[in-house]
This record gives sequence, structure tokens and C-alpha cells, in this order.
Amino acid sequence: MDQSAEFFVRPIGFVESPLKSKLDALKQEHEGAPEAWLMIGKEFVQGIEGILPGQEILVLTWLHLADRDLLKVHPRGDSRNPLRGVFATRSSDRPNPVGLHRVKVLEIAEGRGLRVDHLEALNGTPIVDLKPVLK
Amino acid sequence: MDQSAEFFVRPIGFVESPLKSKLDALKQEHEGAPEAWLMIGKEFVQGIEGILPGQEILVLTWLHLADRDLLKVHPRGDSRNPLRGVFATRSSDRPNPVGLHRVKVLEIAEGRGLRVDHLEALNGTPIVDLKPVLK
Repeated sequence: MDQSAEFFVRPIGFVESPLKSKLDALKQEHEGAPEAWLMIGKEFVQGIEGILPGQEILVLTWLHLADRDLLKVHPRGDSRNPLRGVFATRSSDRPNPVGLHRVKVLEIAEGRGLRVDHLEALNGTPIVDLKPVLK
Repeated sequence: MDQSAEFFVRPIGFVESPLKSKLDALKQEHEGAPEAWLMIGKEFVQGIEGILPGQEILVLTWLHLADRDLLKVHPRGDSRNPLRGVFATRSSDRPNPVGLHRVKVLEIAEGRGLRVDHLEALNGTPIVDLKPVLK
């Protein structure tokens, strides 16, 4: 086992969302996350064949604005909560900031991407992977 | 949006499992996946504080033996199943081979790692992230 191994993630696409900033995301919070488009790169678009409208999928993103050096955080960003290891939280700040989102597919745009409901990810967030939800 | 962006994943640890090969994994299939240790690197081990025995967590792995160039596969490796886009399957072959495993924490070894049940990942598989299961 090579303790110094590193792996490259190459985004398969990007999120298109009305959430343009963390402030937008906070304002939106009481209404739930908005619909978004998962725009899939031309060279990867074959890989979405078989995903169907109405289906639930998992979207793995790369939270590119995260702080990768943090190992402890105050849960929910509230300093009254005692510090906790990042792996015991869903904080976006973590060594490998992979976001995990469960969404419903609303529409497939042939050769371009997927429209999904309730995605809490900022516009421009890189997409790492899509997986079907297992029953 | 930079379509050519790439990101580095640095493993936070490695799986220690009796599953040493894909053949071991196949033989094991009828009994379910075995227990395993998630050995966490010294520089990341602070991040597991707050994870408790009995808790369910998600383990994100890097499936280092995967074929990253495949975009279509025969589901369950059975050529009688028609080809399907990898993002519509749970195949380990995919552009960014991040594995997603839901396990129960059995034991915490202070400063070293976690023992978990039923992890279907080969010995030596790099660990990318841990997250609590949301209720």
C-alpha cells in the first residue's frame, strides 16, 4: 500500500443552478434546494444512457470551494457546537471534498445532461460521478 | 467553468480486509461481505473523532483496479444484459471510480481506525472519505 498515492478526478460535467453563491444558498434554505441541470461533458455523455426520468440517483460532486486542511469543525458552522472530526459531520470542509446528493431525475436532454430536483450545490460545481439509488 | 479542471484525491487511509482478490470477493458473495478495518492515516485520524460504535456511516473508496475508460457495461458483468451507460449502473468501471459503501461501525481503535461490518472492498483499497448516514 502506497501511503503517498494520489488519484486524479476529472469532472464528467458541471452543475447549472440558480444558486450562484453561498449567500444564495443560505437565502434559499427555507424553501429547499432548487432544480438544477447536470450538464455532462460530450466525451462522457454516453455514460448516462439508461438513466430514466422519475428515477432517483446519487450525484457525487467535487466541492471546489471547500477548505481541505480542516479536520475538525463546529457542526452546522455554529461555534456553540463543540468541535467534531469532519468525518463525523457532513461539512463540505474535509480532505477530499466529495459531495453526495440524492436527487430525482426530472428530464433528460439527449446528449447534454439531466434536469434534477432539489440539488444543494452551487452553479459551476464539478460533477464526479452519478449512481443509481439501490432499492 | 474550466472544462479541463482536474482535482487530486489523497487517500485518508486504506481498507484492511480478508478479501485479497476479486476471486475472494466472488467466493464470499453468498455469505455477504466480511468485516474490515478502515485504517486511517496518522495525519487524518483527528477527523474521525465523534464517530461512535454502533453508528452507520458511508465509506467512499477509490476503486483503484477499475477501468476508467469504459462508458458502457453489461450490467452485473453478464453479456446477456444489454449494454448500459456506466452512470446508470453500480459498476466499478467508470471515469472516476469512487465506491460508496454503507457500513456499521463495530469498534474504534484510538488513533488508528475503525472496524466495520460487511464491507465489499478489496484489501488495500484507498479510502477517500467517511460521512455519517443522515436520518
